[in-house]
Order: sequence, then structure tokens, then C-alpha cells
Amino acid sequence: MGKYSLKYLCVLMLLLLKTGSSAFADNGYKLWLEYNKVGNPQLAVAYRQQLSYVIFPAASDRLKAAKFELLTGLDEMLTLKPVDAKSITNGQTIIIGTPQLLKSFSIAVPDSIGGEGYLIKTTLIGQKKCILIAANSDVGVIYGVFNFLKLIQINQSISKLNISDHPRMMYRVLDHWDNLNRTVERGYAGSSIWNWHKLPGVIDQRYIDYARANASVGINGSVVNNVNADALILSPQYLLKVQALANVFRTYGIKIYLSVKFSSPVELGGLKTADPLDPAVKKWWADKADEIYSYIPDFGGFLVKANSEGQPGPQSYGRTHADGANMLADALEPHHGIVMWRAFVYDNKVPDDRFKQAYNEFKPLDGKFKDNVIVQVKNGPIDFQPREPFHPLFGAMPNTPLMMEFQLTQEYLGFSTHLVYEAPLFAECLQSDTYTHGKGSTVARVIKGDFNKKLITGMAGVANIGADLNWCGHPFAQANWYAFGRTAWNSDQSPAVIADDWLRMTFTDDENFVSPVKKFMLQSRENTVNYMAPLGLHHIMGVSTHYGPGPWVDNAGRPDWNATYYHKADSSGIGFDRTGTGSNALAQYAPEVKARWESLQTCPDEYLLWFHHLSWTYKMSSGRSLWDELVYHYYAGAESVKQMSRTWEKMEGKIDAERFSEVKQLMQVQLNEAITWRDACVLYFQTFSKMPIETTYPKSQHPLDYYRNMKFYYVPGIGGNNYMTN
Amino acid sequence: MGKYSLKYLCVLMLLLLKTGSSAFADNGYKLWLEYNKVGNPQLAVAYRQQLSYVIFPAASDRLKAAKFELLTGLDEMLTLKPVDAKSITNGQTIIIGTPQLLKSFSIAVPDSIGGEGYLIKTTLIGQKKCILIAANSDVGVIYGVFNFLKLIQINQSISKLNISDHPRMMYRVLDHWDNLNRTVERGYAGSSIWNWHKLPGVIDQRYIDYARANASVGINGSVVNNVNADALILSPQYLLKVQALANVFRTYGIKIYLSVKFSSPVELGGLKTADPLDPAVKKWWADKADEIYSYIPDFGGFLVKANSEGQPGPQSYGRTHADGANMLADALEPHHGIVMWRAFVYDNKVPDDRFKQAYNEFKPLDGKFKDNVIVQVKNGPIDFQPREPFHPLFGAMPNTPLMMEFQLTQEYLGFSTHLVYEAPLFAECLQSDTYTHGKGSTVARVIKGDFNKKLITGMAGVANIGADLNWCGHPFAQANWYAFGRTAWNSDQSPAVIADDWLRMTFTDDENFVSPVKKFMLQSRENTVNYMAPLGLHHIMGVSTHYGPGPWVDNAGRPDWNATYYHKADSSGIGFDRTGTGSNALAQYAPEVKARWESLQTCPDEYLLWFHHLSWTYKMSSGRSLWDELVYHYYAGAESVKQMSRTWEKMEGKIDAERFSEVKQLMQVQLNEAITWRDACVLYFQTFSKMPIETTYPKSQHPLDYYRNMKFYYVPGIGGNNYMTN
Repeated sequence: MGKYSLKYLCVLMLLLLKTGSSAFADNGYKLWLEYNKVGNPQLAVAYRQQLSYVIFPAASDRLKAAKFELLTGLDEMLTLKPVDAKSITNGQTIIIGTPQLLKSFSIAVPDSIGGEGYLIKTTLIGQKKCILIAANSDVGVIYGVFNFLKLIQINQSISKLNISDHPRMMYRVLDHWDNLNRTVERGYAGSSIWNWHKLPGVIDQRYIDYARANASVGINGSVVNNVNADALILSPQYLLKVQALANVFRTYGIKIYLSVKFSSPVELGGLKTADPLDPAVKKWWADKADEIYSYIPDFGGFLVKANSEGQPGPQSYGRTHADGANMLADALEPHHGIVMWRAFVYDNKVPDDRFKQAYNEFKPLDGKFKDNVIVQVKNGPIDFQPREPFHPLFGAMPNTPLMMEFQLTQEYLGFSTHLVYEAPLFAECLQSDTYTHGKGSTVARVIKGDFNKKLITGMAGVANIGADLNWCGHPFAQANWYAFGRTAWNSDQSPAVIADDWLRMTFTDDENFVSPVKKFMLQSRENTVNYMAPLGLHHIMGVSTHYGPGPWVDNAGRPDWNATYYHKADSSGIGFDRTGTGSNALAQYAPEVKARWESLQTCPDEYLLWFHHLSWTYKMSSGRSLWDELVYHYYAGAESVKQMSRTWEKMEGKIDAERFSEVKQLMQVQLNEAITWRDACVLYFQTFSKMPIETTYPKSQHPLDYYRNMKFYYVPGIGGNNYMTN
Repeated sequence: MGKYSLKYLCVLMLLLLKTGSSAFADNGYKLWLEYNKVGNPQLAVAYRQQLSYVIFPAASDRLKAAKFELLTGLDEMLTLKPVDAKSITNGQTIIIGTPQLLKSFSIAVPDSIGGEGYLIKTTLIGQKKCILIAANSDVGVIYGVFNFLKLIQINQSISKLNISDHPRMMYRVLDHWDNLNRTVERGYAGSSIWNWHKLPGVIDQRYIDYARANASVGINGSVVNNVNADALILSPQYLLKVQALANVFRTYGIKIYLSVKFSSPVELGGLKTADPLDPAVKKWWADKADEIYSYIPDFGGFLVKANSEGQPGPQSYGRTHADGANMLADALEPHHGIVMWRAFVYDNKVPDDRFKQAYNEFKPLDGKFKDNVIVQVKNGPIDFQPREPFHPLFGAMPNTPLMMEFQLTQEYLGFSTHLVYEAPLFAECLQSDTYTHGKGSTVARVIKGDFNKKLITGMAGVANIGADLNWCGHPFAQANWYAFGRTAWNSDQSPAVIADDWLRMTFTDDENFVSPVKKFMLQSRENTVNYMAPLGLHHIMGVSTHYGPGPWVDNAGRPDWNATYYHKADSSGIGFDRTGTGSNALAQYAPEVKARWESLQTCPDEYLLWFHHLSWTYKMSSGRSLWDELVYHYYAGAESVKQMSRTWEKMEGKIDAERFSEVKQLMQVQLNEAITWRDACVLYFQTFSKMPIETTYPKSQHPLDYYRNMKFYYVPGIGGNNYMTN
């Protein structure tokens, strides 16, 4: 081979390398499992060297999946196909497995990491250096492998590893509000990914990729159907379809759960009642549970929305939520299934303050639920608003397992056109101190069971996943799915670290991209609070669609659907008085919390109008009047979107053109909508305050009536049924 | 660089090559524009050599798009980046352009190829050999470039090129039955690809890829909304969204069209009437047309379904279809738009024979339509059945432009789980001889305007496109989109050639794959006729859903929705007598056609029960009784699916694993459903024939009642509205 050939070869190789680069379009389908080529050549060489050999016998489906993932990741990131080995080559081998394999190398796996934990460490075996991924179970190996791949994705050294990790909660579950007709309630990323018509015959590759993505962040459960459930899901015809999904999920350590309609014994079973104390009803559910487990031996259990927004429930028969939940728990118990019983109750009577309703109904039931029931509580007391105080039930039911419910789909956060990174919202709630078990009894510690070790524990995220090519509608919405998994695994992880990892895994390791983009991600949720509902405003969006501003809504079906019910703006001021002079909802919190939020001296601006009705001229800590402060926040919110958009424009060329362009367009939409929110709300509230808007601010392009008369048709997320909210 | 480095380099290169191969998963998103690497190294070297330089100045959006496509295709298939040149290097240059460029090389482009045609030829310019792609317009260049890339995709030599081609019809249009809420009527590939909520702010890459795919096969029009139209589409809010799509389509030579609701002046304009002769109505449409063209200067025109299945129309005001169409045509004429007026009329009165309805209503209107109206006629007289005789209107309206309407979405052909390659269906209809202008006056010649040169011409395909990752639900359903474009361009192209090209472009050039797969593609439509509706049976599917067998349907909303209306099975026999002793629908055809189909001696088996009611013991040309022949076809149909499935299993490893596996699963579903069709129909018809099924055939696994009682929920394709058919 002469000189010319060599040169030709080099040129050809360079061309090929270029072809494999991210220069081509990327539609985002691969999520954070992009497995981009490692760009730093020295690092790549070092990785390849240390991973030349792999000892990873894989007999089970789960181990096969883990091995396939490892080999795919190494191939894509390093163009490396490690040699399958049985013995260790010093410094060049990775060894992966459970005690079954590792005992032959005299390696013990500590019990402390539990059934789902893993070790990743550099170790010496027979005086030969190698990398070890060890776990007590096959699922632990899957988690270990994904986390090892992450190290390469974020270009960390693997020379001196010493990682030991395990999940802090038992049930880490995505709730899909997906209807059987493939609409998704509050879904903004296309139709449901579950193709019920083609199931069980056709297993879409997407189901497998969904399971991979979940496993990569430790999500171990999936409720595949809407909490506004269709009884049909429990019919044999559909259980066969559910079984097919369960078979895919199982390989990745994910259990399948179903939302069930409390009246299923009537609708599906032909019984005359669904009374939870009726023996025939109990038998129906017990038989149904047996039937389900005959299809799916590791079925996870039920999620139930009962006596809420028109859904049937035990109260329809004069029974309590505990009666209803325990009856289902009895049916599932022999099979080790659980009941996730939602505390989002919202019945047909209008309460004096909807804020208080869940607490009032559930607090008296503390300790009355069976061990395999977990009460699923939304992060805040109303309904996934841009900012809510933590739900007063957290800490208030010491003898009842409480499962956190976050909403990843951005029902109240700009659908899939607004960039809102939710990890700071998660952290804000989880790190809130309930004081129910003394100072430091954070929401996170409550739901982790720190104060009652015998409780089961869990966290649910309402999925933002649909059939859009990029799964979540907005490339950055993927970060909320990712961050939910990471947070459910370990709620102490910082939003910044999670964002950093996600950006590197999803886009690029280029610091000039990661650093500025991470910065605006961390700011993004506050931006949206500012242009939508600052200073503790809440529930002022468009009625029914939940799209766009609607502070003027005062004629919805019932008072507590109206925006005016929540902001109570009038000529004297604005805000919902929940102190002792008002609804006294604050009394539902521990005295320390109540005292802090009740006092205008200590109540943070963020929660101010959640708890206080204040005059427009009330003097804020900034020195501004309440009116000026409100206007300031609205303008700051819209302005920050503009700044974010400018930062993004500088990212051109640092990532693939397709996602760059998509985000750029989305940010322009977000900016337009932020300005609409700002101008609509400021003009509306001005009709009460009668106070001026500083002339330095840009004037609204339209009068208030323009915004009030805006009409939106076919807004996504409300197909499939007529329920207003979940 | 020593020996070791060279070896290392080679190994690395091989690894990289492997990475770039089709070993990885392929979800089918790229359609037939996969641009697979050319596998034959000698051929690749030859291609690269001949395409080293490119002369292709691209100033307009269309030429830029063509150039981008060329460079993308060459890069992906050949890892080639040709050098931009201004002068010709002998044997190594490709020169591309319109007369504007070519005149400087003293090259003339013949008028005969028209505005959309192109030349691809090897030529000498100044005694230097080069490849020339020439056209009279930028769109012609786009078509030329796609067809040149096709040559490489199918691995043909480009050494001696001499291609001249042009479309044989003016309007080559996809009709999307997409609702504004993103459901798709009779859509089996997920939700609508049009994300109306995010339009006009977000231009999905999918819109661009849709336009590319269409342009690659010469489709030059797209009706983006359902013929069961929502008046909202004409509101300014939606016209802005439509404009955004039009801007994408324009670059690829595609005009946008809208389905309009005839009553829009009432619903949107607040008029009291939509009477086409009312001056206010005329003015409303004229103003609306002006408004549309202010948004979209090259808007294509309207598609109208009027007085059919509950849709409003001119007859509601005592006017004719011509009155309605001409009024809209007047509004569009100043802007050069057209009206596509559907002949699928199907009113509230039950006809003695639905077969005859369109002919009876439209034939008398021949010559009464304005020049810019084209009457859109379905291929057959009923409704896209697995096999229909050609529609009697073809040839019967010599002074009226008739536009063919084929259905690509498989409403009656197994949705997106059955592999049915439709090109043979297209060809069967198009090559049918109407005899209306003497022997050889085929349907193709009629719609091409061969017998009346002043008529406008066109072909429509009801799209099978949705938001599924692979666009069409079934990897092979993409072939119907492709074949429609090729057929609309030139209806004389053979289904086999089209299938051959499509397979090579979509999957692989491997002859061991192409040959057997092409064979079963060409057979596939006949298979489905056999297991669904052989010997001329029609409209015996499930009511409303059109899913699964329903020969027993006799209680639908009206008689002509019943299967029994069409098959008329009783103890004496089966079939619809449309001869003189029956409905005499045959009289709608030319005497030669009528005579052939009326006589039992000459009527082909394929059409037998379309036109004759015959006794179960009637002796077929095969020697079998009609009953035995019917059973024979049902069993042959299901058996052929099994054979197809076996052939497919042998293809493992020849293409990517993802699509291989998906098709394998789909074929199993198809086989199960074919058996269901077979057993349900045979058992049902046996209740009349009382004749035995040969014992050599496998017995049905279930009794007839099992099939009659099968229940299907949430069958795709009927969301969004309540219309039964289109």
C-alpha cells in the first residue's frame, strides 16, 4: 500500500467521520440516549483501552437487555466492540453482573444497596485492575449499566470509579392520561404512544425505547391509561393488549399499572352496585385481580380517581375513601399489588375554599388505609399551578403512605411551546419544610418515609409523552421526563446537576452550549411564573382549555372554576385571604408554617397572594407598591423569554440544525404568548387598581377587549372526554 | 506513519463503515429517500468519478432545495461532496439548470417537455463529456434531480443517460381527510401530521420532508383538510396557518388546496343562505377567494363534497351541482384556481341501486361546468371496495374534465395492518377500456384528456399519511403513496417497475430481497380480494368502522348501508343483478362493456357478483360450483398470506432489524384477520347455500355466532365526526 493510498484512506476516513457526526438532522427521537460520538480523541482512546474486554454473561432477558444497551452505547459513542472474555486482562476489562456471576470472582455485593441499587467501581481482582458493575438483581445491573454509559455520555473519567447508588423511593411511576381512543387528556405531544388497535399483535419499537428511557433514569412503573378511566381496560380483550405492553416493560424492570373506574363491577360485570362493602363487588374485584395476574404475574396495581369531577367512588354508596381503597387493596394483596388512591378530590359541592378540600377529607382517614394503599397527593393544594405552596397533607398523615404527584405535561405551564424546566419546581416542593416532625421534616423526608419506616413510598409524574417524533413536543420538555426520573430516584439531586447531565447526554458536551443553556433552564420556570401568575396568583388561565390568560373568567360552570374565585381582585386589592380572617386554610399547616405564611413580615413574595388579600398600594419589601411589583414581574417574565431566545440564537451550529431551528421557533411562540399573558393580565388587573403602568414599559399592542375576545379552537389536550381537569 | 498505524487506520475505517451501515434500527421515517450507501464499490467509484464537479448555481428557493437534495443524496449514498465549478471537467461534471443557466453553455431545452418535465442526459459540451439535468422551470429541475438521484438509489449506470420525461396529467394531488382536531377520518397511521395548534409559529421538519417526498414522485398538490370540511378553515386565524404550510410546499412545487364547506357563507359569514345564485353569496366567496390569495398567491383551489352524506350543497337550494361548482369557479378564476367537485354523491334518499347514483346526477351536467372545474370521480361506482369495476362516468362526460380519485388509505383494504400494494388496482382501473370513444379508449386516456384536449386533467389520492414514525402505519403502505405519485405522473408505468424502484430505494438493492418481495407485493391486492370479497362481492365489511367482516349486516341506518343490500344472498343464490332483469346499472356503460359484463359467457369471474345473481350451484369456468369457487377463493386468500409471511421470514438479515420485525408482526396480524374474514364469510354464506365445505380445508375454529358477536372498540379512523364514509 503506497503513500497515495494511505492519503486516500485518510481522506475517506475523515469523510466518513463527518457523515457520522451530528451535522445531520436530529429529530430528538433518541432522547437523552443519543450516545453521541466522544469528541475528545484522547478521552476516546482511554475509554476504548479500559473497555477492551467485557465479562458479562447474560442469560436472562433483563441481562440481555443491559448487555445490548452497553454494546450499543459503546459502539455508538466509541465505535467500540469489546471482546467477550471470561478472565480479566489487567486495566482493560469491565465485569458486570449479580452475585451469581461475581461469586466466582470472590466479589460480594453489599446488601445496603438493596434490590435495585448498583455499584460502579474501579477495583482489583486477583491483582488485576478492572471496572466492576455489580448489583443484587438483574434490574440493578440495568441501572448500573445505564449509569455507567452516562459517565461516558458526559465525558467523565472512568479511571477511578467508586459509585454506589440506590433509589430512595419504592414506586417511581409515570401516569399516562391516555385514553383508549389515543387522545391524551392534557397531552401536548401528539396522540398516545399506545396503539391499542394494533396491540397485542404489533409491538412498536417505541414501546421498547420508552422502557429503555425509563429504565435509564430508574422509573420502575407505568400507569398506561387515563385516571378518568374507561371500564373497558379491564375486559379480556384489553387485558391481552396490556399484557403485551407488560411483557416489554418487564425486561426493563418496569411494572405496569392500570387506572380503574370504580364502577367497573357495574359497567363491565353487570352488577347492580359498586358499593365497596358489598360481597359481590368484593368478589368481582378479587376475581378480576386474579384474572389480571393470570395475564401479568408482576402486575403493579391500580390507580384510582374516585369521587372527583364526576367519577364514581365509594362516597356514592355512603362509604369512605378508605373503604374504597381497602376493598381494592384486599383484591390485590394476595398478588402483592398496590392501590394508588388519588387525594385530588373535587366533588360536586362547591367548597368555601377548594384549597382545603383534600385535607379535610383525607386527614381524618390517617391510619385507616391498608398497608398496600398509597394516597397520591398533588404537589400543591389546587392543581399544578405554575407555583403552589406544598400540599398541607404532606406531613399531616403520619400513618399513611403519601405518594407525590407531579405533572410533567405542562397543562398550566405553556403546553409544549414554552420552555419550562420543572426540576426547580420539584425541588421547591420537596425541600419545603413541613415542620410536622420538627424542623427539617421536609416534604421529601415525609414521602421517603423517614418518619415512619413501615410505609411504602413513591412518586408519580403525569407523563408529557406522546407520539410526536421527539416524544414530548418540545425538545426541552424531554428534560422534565428525565428530571422526574432522577428526582424520584433521589430527591436530593440538584436541578443544576440534572440539567447539566441532561444537556450533555441530549445535545453536546460543548461547555459553550451547556453553560448558558443550563443557566436559562434553571431560570425558566420562574420566568413562566412571572409572565403567567406572579406573587402567588393562581388559576387565572383560560377556562376548560387551560390555554392562555383568563383572569376575567367569572362565568364557568361553578364558582371554583372561575379565575375570579382565586384572585378576588377588586378596587380594594387582590389575593385570596387564607388567614384566620379568611378561609383559614393556613390552619391545615404546622404552626411554624402557618405562622410564617400568615405574617406579612415573613410570608415570601412568591406565596403572597395565595394567602393574603392586599391593597394595590400595599408596600412590598422591594419598596414598590403591590401594583407596581405585579407589573414589574409580568414585564420581567416576558423580557426574560426574549433574553433566553437571544441566548439560544447564539447556539446555532453548536448542535444539529433541526433541533436548533425547532427550539428557536418555539421560543418565538413562547415570547408572543408571554407578551399576551402579560398584557392581558396587566390590563385586566388595571381595571381594578386604576393605577398607571410605568411609561418605560412597552405599551400593550391591543386593548383588553382584544384579549378577552381571543378565540381558540381545537386546543390540544381536551379530546376524549369532557372532564375539565384531573 | 508506520505500518502499525496504517493497519490501525484500516480497522478503524472498517468499524466506522459498519457503524454507518443499515445494521442499526431504521424506523422508516425516511420513506423511499433512504439514500442508502451504494454497496458495490466499483459502482461507487464510478459514480464519484463522474460527479466530482457540479455546475448548479441556485438562486431561487426551489433551486436551492434541489441542490440541497442533490448534495444530501450524494453525501449519504457516496460520501461525496462534489466541487462547485463554473466550467466543465471532461467526464467528471454534472451541470444542472434551466435555460437561464444553460444558454451560457449554448444548450437549448425543448418545449416538448413542458413546464414540469426534465431531461437527464449524457452530452458533449465544447467536446467535454458531462451529465446534464435540464428543465424549463425550477420545478422541472427539482423533478430532474430527484429522478437522477433515483438512478443512483437503484444502482443504475449513469454513463450513457438519455432520459426525457414529463407528467401526463396537470393536477397530481393528495387529499388529506384530516380534521382540525388532528383526528384523521379513515386514517390508520396515527394523528394528522398538521399540528394546527403550533402553526403558523412552528414549522415542523415533517412538513418539509412531506414536501420532499411528494416532489420526488411528482405530486404537485395537497388538499390539507377533510372533505367533510369545517368552515373554520376559511377564517383568518386558520388561513394564517394554511399560509405557513403553503410557504413550505411552494419550495417543492406543491400547491395547497382546501376542502370547503358549501355552507361557509352562513356559518362563517353570517349570511342567511348559501344559495349559489344569491348575489351576496357569490360576493362572499369572491371576497373570500381574494382574501385567500392575499395570503397565498399560488393557492390551488377548492375541493368540495356537496350534497353527500349530510353535507350541505347547491341542491339544498334547488340548484344543480354545476350551479354550485361554477359559482366557486367564478370566485377562483381571476386567481387561476380550480374547483375539484366530487361526484361521490350519496344523498338522504335511498336509491334503487347506489351504483347508479353519481352517473344519474352528473351525466346530464356534461358540458355545463366552467373550464376551471374538474369533477372528481372515485375509481369505482360504490366506495373504494377491494375490487370495483371502473366508474361508469369515465368516458360518459366527454365535455367535462374528470379527475380520478383513488384511495391510498386502506379503509376497505385492512387498514394499516394488511400489506396491499395498490398499484395493480390503479392499473386495473386505468387500463380498463371504456369503449366510449371506440376500442382503446381506456380510463387513463379519458382522464388524460386524450379525447378532448382542452380539458384540464388530474388524479387525486386519498392520503394514507399520519404522524406515525413511518408515516403510513405499515412500512409497505408507503409504497401506495409512492405508486400513486408515479401513476399520476404517468399512468402507463407498470406496477412491477414501480414496486422494483420502491423496494430498492426504501430497503436494499439486494436482488435476493427485491425479487421475492416484489412478487408478493404484486400478488397482495388479489390476496386481499380473495379473503375479503372474491368473485365480485362488495361492501360486506363491518358497519361504520369498516373493520373486519360483516356480511350479515342488515340493520344499519338505511338499506344501502347494509351488506345484505349488496350481496343479496339467499337460498337461491348470491349477487346483485345489475343486468336488464335487475337494476340495469350496466346500461350506464358503453354497449361493448355492457355486453361483455352482461353475458355470463364473457363476464370475468372478478366482476361476476357485481352484476349477476346466480345460484349456488352455477357452474363456473373452472368447473366448480359457484359455492365451491367462493370457498376456494376465501381459502386461497388466507393461504397466500401465510405464504407471503413465510417468504418474508426468509428476508431476515437482508434489511434492518426494526422494519423486518415490524412487517413480520404485521403479517401475523394480517393472517389472523384473513382467517377471520374467511371463516366468518364462508360460514355466513353457508347458511344460505347449505352446501358443504371441502373437508381438505381447515375447519373454522369458531362457529358463526362467534364472529357475529365480535366487538371492536375505538377502531381508528372514525374519530372527529360521525360520517360513515367519504
